Amino acid sequence: MSELEIYQKQGFGNSSGIGQRPALLIIDFVNGFANPEQFGGGNIQEAIENTQGLLAEARALGLPIAFTRVVYADDGSDAGVFTLKAPSLTQLTENSFGSQIVEQLKPQDGEYIVRKTQPSAFFGTNLTAWFVSKGVDTVLVTGCTTSGCVRASVIDSMSYNFRTVVATDCVGDRALGPHEANLFDMEQKYADLMTSSEIIAVLYERVPTETAAGPR
Amino acid sequence: MSELEIYQKQGFGNSSGIGQRPALLIIDFVNGFANPEQFGGGNIQEAIENTQGLLAEARALGLPIAFTRVVYADDGSDAGVFTLKAPSLTQLTENSFGSQIVEQLKPQDGEYIVRKTQPSAFFGTNLTAWFVSKGVDTVLVTGCTTSGCVRASVIDSMSYNFRTVVATDCVGDRALGPHEANLFDMEQKYADLMTSSEIIAVLYERVPTETAAGPR
Amino acid sequence: MSELEIYQKQGFGNSSGIGQRPALLIIDFVNGFANPEQFGGGNIQEAIENTQGLLAEARALGLPIAFTRVVYADDGSDAGVFTLKAPSLTQLTENSFGSQIVEQLKPQDGEYIVRKTQPSAFFGTNLTAWFVSKGVDTVLVTGCTTSGCVRASVIDSMSYNFRTVVATDCVGDRALGPHEANLFDMEQKYADLMTSSEIIAVLYERVPTETAAGPR
Amino acid sequence: MSELEIYQKQGFGNSSGIGQRPALLIIDFVNGFANPEQFGGGNIQEAIENTQGLLAEARALGLPIAFTRVVYADDGSDAGVFTLKAPSLTQLTENSFGSQIVEQLKPQDGEYIVRKTQPSAFFGTNLTAWFVSKGVDTVLVTGCTTSGCVRASVIDSMSYNFRTVVATDCVGDRALGPHEANLFDMEQKYADLMTSSEIIAVLYERVPTETAAGPR
Repeated sequence: MSELEIYQKQGFGNSSGIGQRPALLIIDFVNGFANPEQFGGGNIQEAIENTQGLLAEARALGLPIAFTRVVYADDGSDAGVFTLKAPSLTQLTENSFGSQIVEQLKPQDGEYIVRKTQPSAFFGTNLTAWFVSKGVDTVLVTGCTTSGCVRASVIDSMSYNFRTVVATDCVGDRALGPHEANLFDMEQKYADLMTSSEIIAVLYERVPTETAAGPR
Repeated sequence: MSELEIYQKQGFGNSSGIGQRPALLIIDFVNGFANPEQFGGGNIQEAIENTQGLLAEARALGLPIAFTRVVYADDGSDAGVFTLKAPSLTQLTENSFGSQIVEQLKPQDGEYIVRKTQPSAFFGTNLTAWFVSKGVDTVLVTGCTTSGCVRASVIDSMSYNFRTVVATDCVGDRALGPHEANLFDMEQKYADLMTSSEIIAVLYERVPTETAAGPR
Repeated sequence: MSELEIYQKQGFGNSSGIGQRPALLIIDFVNGFANPEQFGGGNIQEAIENTQGLLAEARALGLPIAFTRVVYADDGSDAGVFTLKAPSLTQLTENSFGSQIVEQLKPQDGEYIVRKTQPSAFFGTNLTAWFVSKGVDTVLVTGCTTSGCVRASVIDSMSYNFRTVVATDCVGDRALGPHEANLFDMEQKYADLMTSSEIIAVLYERVPTETAAGPR
Repeated sequence: MSELEIYQKQGFGNSSGIGQRPALLIIDFVNGFANPEQFGGGNIQEAIENTQGLLAEARALGLPIAFTRVVYADDGSDAGVFTLKAPSLTQLTENSFGSQIVEQLKPQDGEYIVRKTQPSAFFGTNLTAWFVSKGVDTVLVTGCTTSGCVRASVIDSMSYNFRTVVATDCVGDRALGPHEANLFDMEQKYADLMTSSEIIAVLYERVPTETAAGPR
């Protein structure tokens, strides 16, 4: 029996769908993760480029949009177990180049910026509360890395009962084996996998036109 | 460059070690996950057997010990996105056979039983608070599945700044590809990997003898 | 300047209102808190009686309804700092009479029962996730005690960005000074105060009639 | 029966004590809360002055020290229900004068600064994780306001099973009625009340001398 067959037999891998009030979550697309010499590489650059289109459509439709950045204190006071495992993360401080969101995806006023020190966008942040304030029922996930902060955020998003969709062409990783392995795990247990084109098609069916900020 | 080399070059994969006050966390070793016809299979049975020795030593040393069970409400009132992805999870109710901890690892009085509905042992539970009450600084993780509730719990354990160790011979999964892939991810970013024998050797060096409940 | 004037001058005490998707939260109306010889007294009995009408209307309108119970483990394994301050709380175990929801407010299938050991209904529970799954934007709070678990739950409800309303005639406390003092604090900073009659009037304006389970 | 007698009869008001690893938490002593024309007044200024001595001793003893600031986004993107109740809170942005910690209590390198938007120092922050990383078992609380962010933080501190002590002369409020009422509630259920002198005396008995940074 293949791995997929084992999961199917035990009842995993069903779809949780897209609800009525989706939000877009863009995880750690910052300069340091766009740079193969720092934390980047693999298919991350391609994922950033693909996210530009999804972001533009989300803005046109007036969806709530949240970004995350990894930000550690300048004095190292908030270093912890994560920075024991990966000490170079502490380079990502408030004003460091590596911690700024990439120019292609620059946030606009009213979009929410989450500063975090842990993998999940929800851990030790007010992201859940922000989604509640916007009436969100579905989280569309892009960002990097698939096997790191995307995976951790997807588990929490699902655990808070947001329907969760991973935009497969808009998530990237420094190494492709973990990228693929984590897409498999997430699809079986936590989230639906869709391309950004598939997501956009559903959004234009689903989101009430009066919410949209204007014509496409 | 191999995947491992990419991670090494970017500064991942360091050790976070074992502190002075370890606790043992045993995740979802319940009948339903011991049964290949329900949620089990793979190397889960072997992991249960290997956990018996580690549990006995942890008891001898007087370590805080916590178990998790997946428990959904009898009336389905707490079904959510996780049970959309995997509807058969709702079979695990308070008194169902599948939700009882396996006989080989039966909890004793004073050991903490976490009821959970989501992957992480920490999500929507008081496990963090219980570890704080016991002065815990390190979590030794066993259980199943490696790619599911173990991975999710390890991320949260590390995020709460508990030094986290996965007992490699005491975690199991229904399919071995995800098991291996998740061990790789966890070692690179969140936890140390050690066999139960290696862990026990460190415990007997580290834990003050006066804490131990008696001679080995 | 009176205390109220100080708060007004500094810009507190505004209304946060009722949104489109209210839920009813009934906190700790269990036998032990209905009994003046255990944890009850004051105006708690009256608050239980007043809650009956609000519960009936919430059911007629099909609102999501959640109840909390305080439940400690039979073996005392989850005792903590709260039970150092108030040791008699550990009497409230799963099958103890004191921990059962009062007969007048008996939950129905599909209504959510939160077991908790700490003051807030949200702390270490999945209540936030359950409200997300129901699309809730407003929490209507009843229960006891006003100065204890109601106050703690109201802070968290507001912090998660649920518009929060305390039903003044449906919350009670063993002593009236703390009851009044906590209503003042909550109104200034966290929640609106309304009688159950005022709440019901708004619900019938606000909740789409097609949601209602049937005629009044 | 007096209110105090009711609480005593029901078993509240016991001491939870001070453990072996206390930390100092200084809540919202920022310019905006030191200014009676913004959010200050009452006995807040006096509490700031009294905190100077406790902070100096905590530093001499090498205790972990954390400060909180209220910080909202410049573009108002994170406004929520709290800012519906109290709109002027949104004046407290990263670089506003009102949001800076008062000069008398200026943090030093290695001390942890928590940015928060909600009442509790623990809500949507990494404070619990930071205390775990420092092995903290007890939280000594100072700050303002007693009836607001101090009360909310004390509930969470206790809920996470940190023994919690309110330094009575180091907490302040814009109005004295709520200050006194909240001290009563906290002592009965969540925390011990001690003066800063009493706390310092215990610290010098309790904290191992080798931890202290030097002679007094």
